[in-house]
Order: sequence, then C-alpha cells, then structure tokens
Amino acid sequence: SIDPTRLTARLDELGQIGAIPGTIGCARLALTDDDKAGRDLVRTWMEELGLDISIDGIGNVIATMPGFDPSLAPVMTGSHIDTVATGGRYDGNLGVLAGLEVIETVLAAGIELERPLAVGWFTDEEGARFPPDMLGSLVYVGGLPLEDALEIEDRDGAVVGDELDRIGYRGAAPTPGRVPHAFVELHIEQGPILEDEDITIGVVEGVQGISWTELTITGQSCHAGTTPMRLRHDPGYVAAAITTFVRDLTRELGGSQVATVGRLDLTPNLVNVVPSVATMTIDLRNTDEATLQEAEARFRAFVEQTAEREGVSVDSRTLARFEPVEFDPRVIDIVEQAAERTGQSSRRLPSGAGHDAQMFARVCPTAMIFTPSVNGISHNVTEYTEPADLEAGANVLLDVMLTLTSM
Amino acid sequence: SIDPTRLTARLDELGQIGAIPGTIGCARLALTDDDKAGRDLVRTWMEELGLDISIDGIGNVIATMPGFDPSLAPVMTGSHIDTVATGGRYDGNLGVLAGLEVIETVLAAGIELERPLAVGWFTDEEGARFPPDMLGSLVYVGGLPLEDALEIEDRDGAVVGDELDRIGYRGAAPTPGRVPHAFVELHIEQGPILEDEDITIGVVEGVQGISWTELTITGQSCHAGTTPMRLRHDPGYVAAAITTFVRDLTRELGGSQVATVGRLDLTPNLVNVVPSVATMTIDLRNTDEATLQEAEARFRAFVEQTAEREGVSVDSRTLARFEPVEFDPRVIDIVEQAAERTGQSSRRLPSGAGHDAQMFARVCPTAMIFTPSVNGISHNVTEYTEPADLEAGANVLLDVMLTLTSM
Ligand SMILES: NC(=O)NCCC(=O)O
Ligand SMILES: NC(=O)NCCC(=O)O
Repeated sequence: SIDPTRLTARLDELGQIGAIPGTIGCARLALTDDDKAGRDLVRTWMEELGLDISIDGIGNVIATMPGFDPSLAPVMTGSHIDTVATGGRYDGNLGVLAGLEVIETVLAAGIELERPLAVGWFTDEEGARFPPDMLGSLVYVGGLPLEDALEIEDRDGAVVGDELDRIGYRGAAPTPGRVPHAFVELHIEQGPILEDEDITIGVVEGVQGISWTELTITGQSCHAGTTPMRLRHDPGYVAAAITTFVRDLTRELGGSQVATVGRLDLTPNLVNVVPSVATMTIDLRNTDEATLQEAEARFRAFVEQTAEREGVSVDSRTLARFEPVEFDPRVIDIVEQAAERTGQSSRRLPSGAGHDAQMFARVCPTAMIFTPSVNGISHNVTEYTEPADLEAGANVLLDVMLTLTSM
Repeated sequence: SIDPTRLTARLDELGQIGAIPGTIGCARLALTDDDKAGRDLVRTWMEELGLDISIDGIGNVIATMPGFDPSLAPVMTGSHIDTVATGGRYDGNLGVLAGLEVIETVLAAGIELERPLAVGWFTDEEGARFPPDMLGSLVYVGGLPLEDALEIEDRDGAVVGDELDRIGYRGAAPTPGRVPHAFVELHIEQGPILEDEDITIGVVEGVQGISWTELTITGQSCHAGTTPMRLRHDPGYVAAAITTFVRDLTRELGGSQVATVGRLDLTPNLVNVVPSVATMTIDLRNTDEATLQEAEARFRAFVEQTAEREGVSVDSRTLARFEPVEFDPRVIDIVEQAAERTGQSSRRLPSGAGHDAQMFARVCPTAMIFTPSVNGISHNVTEYTEPADLEAGANVLLDVMLTLTSM
C-alpha cells in the first residue's frame, strides 16, 4: 500500500506554490513563474527517487524507473500540475504525485516488474492560458506538430516557445514521445456523481467531446446617452444574447449537454460607451458526438442571424475541438477489478472534464480512475477531496499499474 | 465673428495629446498624464490672453477677463477636456476652446462689456474614470461636498485627491464656486438629429435623466465540463440575462428610453471556468423622470428575481443619478435668436448626454448650443463635426454671451 501521509504532505507542499491567500486553492497558470516553481519542486522529488527524467520540446516531464531493458515500453501514469486561476490543489496534481507515490512504494518494497513504471506531467493541460487544453499530451501523442504548439499565444501575446525558454523547460526529448505499454490516470472527479452516490472510485469509461470557440464581435462604439437603440451596433448585447442562447440550448438538448461562457471582454469597457468590440469564449460539451455537432450548428446559426440583425461582424476561432473518447475495455476492467480487490465501492462513469489520458487513448490502452470531489466542486479554490479518498485512489492506481505491467 | 482657423487649429493641437494612432480620436481619461498635458496646453493659451486663472479644489480651471469691478458676476461658458478611452477631439473640447475663442475675439475687437466673460473647464465630466459624470461641475455648484469628491476611487483604486495632487491640479479656489450671472455651453450634439434634419444649431431645452448602477454579482466558480447546468450559480449568465432584459425594456417603454451595459468584467475570466463574480454597469436614461423611475424599478425587480432563481448574490451601487433638467426659458430664447441673427437654421431638442451646463442650471440661468455630429457618432474615434458647423456654433456662442452680459 502507498503511504497516505507522504502523499498528502506533498500535495500540501505543492499547493503552497501559487497559494491563493485565505483559501486552500492555488493559481499556477501554465508556464508562469509559479508553474516553474511547482515543476522544480516535483522534479526534485523525482530526482531524489533516482528516476530517469526526460523533458521534451513542449515541456512535458517524464520520470521512468531505471535499470530496465530499454526496449520495454513503460506502464505510464501522469497528469498535470498547472492549474486555473481559481484552482484547487488536487486537479492534476493528485495524478502526478500519486504516480510518484506508487513508484516510491514499488521501489521501497523491492517488487520485481516485467517492465518499468513511469510518471509524467504534461504542459498546459488546463488550456486556461494557451488553448487548446491538454496541449502537452496532445503534442506527446503526435496530435499537434511541436512547431505549431510552440507558436500558440496567450491573450497578452506571450508565446509558448518563449515562455518555455524563460522558465527553462524547453527540453531535448523528441515529440511525438515514446508510446507507453499502457496509460492510466488518477484524477479527482471534479463533479458531483460519486459523492451523491457515496461511492469511492469512479471507473472512467470515456471523456465527453469538447468544443471551444472564441468569438470576436465588432460593432460600433457610440454614446450611451445620445444614440437611439435602433441605431446601435452593440457587440456586448450580442455577446449577452449568445450567452443566454447557449444556456437555453442546454435545456433543449438535455442529456449531458453543457455550455459555458467563461470569458468575456468588452472594449473600451466604460459605463457610458456602447462597446466597440466584445471577445468571448463558448465551451460546449457532450458525451455524444452527433448531439455536440447539433449544438455547434445551432450555436453558429444563432450567432450568424443575431450578428446580421444587429449589424455587427463576427470573427470565429476554434480554440479546441476533441471528439468524445472511449477508453480501452481491458483497462476499464482492470480498474474495476482493482477497486474491488482493494475493497472500494466503484461505478462506471464518463468524464465531464478533458484529461491527458484522452490523448494517450489515441496511441495505447488507456483508462482513468476518479476519486470524489466534495460538493462536486473544482476550478474553485474550495476544491477538496477527503484524505481517505486520496489514499483509496492511489492504492487503486498502484494495483492497476502493477497489473498493467503484465497485460 | 470668431476666427475659425484659430479655433480648429487649437482643437487639432489639443487632439494630438492622447491621440489614438491611426485615427482622429484621442484618449485623455480624467486626471491621467494625458489629461494633465491637455490642461497645461489650454492653460498656456489662457495665460497668453492675460486672463485671470483660478483653480479650485477639484481641479476646475476658470479663466476670467481682467479689469472688471469684482462684484460683477461673469457670464460664463465652459465644458470639459477629459475624454473617454475611445474619444473624439470635439466632445467637451469644443466648448472650452470656442469659449476661449469668443473671449479672444471680444478682447481683440475692444468691445466694452457690462460684466466680464469667463471660460472654464470642469474635471472628469465624462465620469468614465471616476463616477459620477459631471463631477467637477457638480462640486462647483455645491451638489457634492469637496471632501466626498476627493475620495472617489477609480476601478484600480486610484483616488481623485491623490491624482489631482499627482498632476498638480488641486487648486486653492473655494468650492462651491462663484455663481455666474448666466451660463451657456457649446457642445457637439453627439447624436443624429441635427444631421438627419440638415440643421446647423440645436437649441437645447434640457438634459434627460441619468441613472448609473454598478452591480457586483457573486456566484460560484466551478468546472465548465463537469458541473451540470442545474447545479450552477453563474454570475456571467445573470449579467447576460440583465443585458438582454434592459434592451427589451427600452422597446417596451419606448419614447426616449435608452439602456446600455458598457462595462462587464468576469472573474476569473477563463474559458473552462464558470465565473465566480461578474461586475457590470447599467446606464438608463429618459427625458421623463417618472418613466426613468419605472425603468429603474423594473430593472431592480428583474435583477432580484433572476438572482434568486440562479442562486447568486448581488451588490448594487448607484454611480450616478441625475433627474432630467430643464434649461432657463430666457436663455433658450436667446440661443434661438442668436442662431437666427447669425443666419443659421435651428431647432429645439433635448440633450441625450449629460453636460456641465446641467449642473449650472441649478444655480443660474443656463442653456446650451449644439452643433451637428457626422453620423450622430460620439464616444468613438471617428467623432467629427464639419469646420463650418464649428464656426457657426462658436459665432452663436459669441452672440449669446454678449447678449447675456446685459440680461
Ligand atoms: N481536468 C481538467 O480540469 N481539465 C481541464 C480541461 C477541461 O476539461 O476544460
Ligand atoms: N457629453 C458627454 O459625453 N458627457 C458624458 C456624460 C454622459 O455619459 O452623458
């Protein structure tokens, strides 16, 4: 069994970096100084265990047990250590530190393995700074050329490649990276289902489809007091109409459909000036690809028709688009059996969030393990998972990884 | 007659300060370095004319013809030289520089007057940085104690008093300031009516009521992918619903009712995070006080009911509230006669924008003169008024001010 005290102590120590005062949350947006500090800390822990560390061109860091025949592909686990701006200390971090804990436990116990274990963290999983989300793992599996990834800009014009150089994490290991024998990721659920049903382990069958769009809506700034309503071309109003439309759309489509306007900026953003420009993001998700496509089509039609009516122009950019992913049935079974073997209740469920594991599912047998989130809350400073659940999840991860070495 | 070349040259020179590259617009938000540079330039012009200059505690600058019996209250004109962030070079500036032009013309012609003429500019008329709008003239007429005005903060926490000290414009002249014999302000219309009807001079009968509210809506940030719609408390959605509601309200109330959401900020403003906080402003205006009150009441009821339904809390702050103002019938007549005397077409109309003159209407006989705005556009870098209209307006101002000296 893993050491739960060591695991939570490391989660807490990492959570101090970028800590948000007065909360248990933290902010370590990808490739910022705080992200670098978090990376340095976790790398120290990996080095202390004597693992082989490789850093690739997009800043993914993989630590592998040494001393195996180099032809043997590792059983890999991993996740991310970047967070959103109102992040918790578990999202991503748990998967990385539990992976480290599993390897430390196996090394300490002197267990003989058919193939090495590896734990990695992947750059900019959140996508909150540089779209798309899961950027590092996408590049790792060959889903996006490194050159393209290095040129992605954040909203202030900072570029991925420059930021990697700045924090010293543009490595030499090639991408696409080495294909693992199998991949499994432990993550907090970030949603309410496990807690609602009082279940400890989520056996993740797949990830819903993700569609991110950024709209830049251009109208005409004018005077809030003197301009009759009929003469206005107000991009802020159009953004508001889109926001309420996608909310209504989730009700009409039902099922797993969710829609979020997380980002909205008005220019010049002054009380008595009708805005000239509104920039907004729309996040649409569904477990079913056909329904997600319907949501996208209806969204696009509404944008077009509203823009036409209001006399504004719209520039649309896809920030991320991933189809729903189904994990490998064999690995799903192994997770389910591991939960049973370690005495934990479990249920199968889809993931509402995107995860690095969904990228690995393109290249090797993959699945995920969820632990409950108190109040189903994540991307919020109050994000929390009970220590007993962290321990249960890490022990299931240990069991799954050992089983996968001989799959 | 005034010298149109000198007037437009000064407008252009002042418009170079804070000029927005590639446009004819400029940005000189109140009490910024650019506002200081604009103030210094106009003060130099006033000094060159040998006028008596006084600066009061809120930074209003008044230049008065010298050599008169000090007991004679001046006929005053004036406006503002601060602009919004997407401002033009005429809004406010015209009223100040045309006033200067009138005084220079009278001095050069050696006309004997019964009482002095004065021209002033008033701090933070736009209210775009420090609410309320017309801050300087409000303090001048005693509508707000100086101590309170000096403590007003902008969105970044900068304070009026400190900013006045910083740019060297906290003066010693007392507030409330000296009551003028009469007040008249020349301003661009900033709306479409005069241009639509091909009329050169607007005889302004009054100013519509202004109601500015800032709402801080607090919900719960959570994950855009994992949080079912029914569990969300999304302040961004509530802000959008309010934005479309006030638009609908203008259609229902009809008449002069306008409504604008000019400012909206989401926290943390990230693509995959349901926001925790939305801050927004709502600008409601109507020429009729009873209807404006009805608009406010319906707005408040909608906010309350939507907040309750969505499970968010709302903090509401009044940034500005001014009832509709009616100008003095005698001064209105004098403006109308001056237009006729100088050979210009005119019509009576209300002002959609707030103006310093509406504050002076509280203490002395007051009215305003409008000149046309091309395409009715203002608070936009393309704001423009034809040179011939600027000249016509300044000549009407000259005629009105001379007439008022013996009213
Ligand atoms: N796990 C997680 O929060 N991923 C961020 C990507 C997303 O689902 O928006
Ligand atoms: N004239 C003018 O633009 N004043 C600004 C105050 C307002 O919002 O009406």
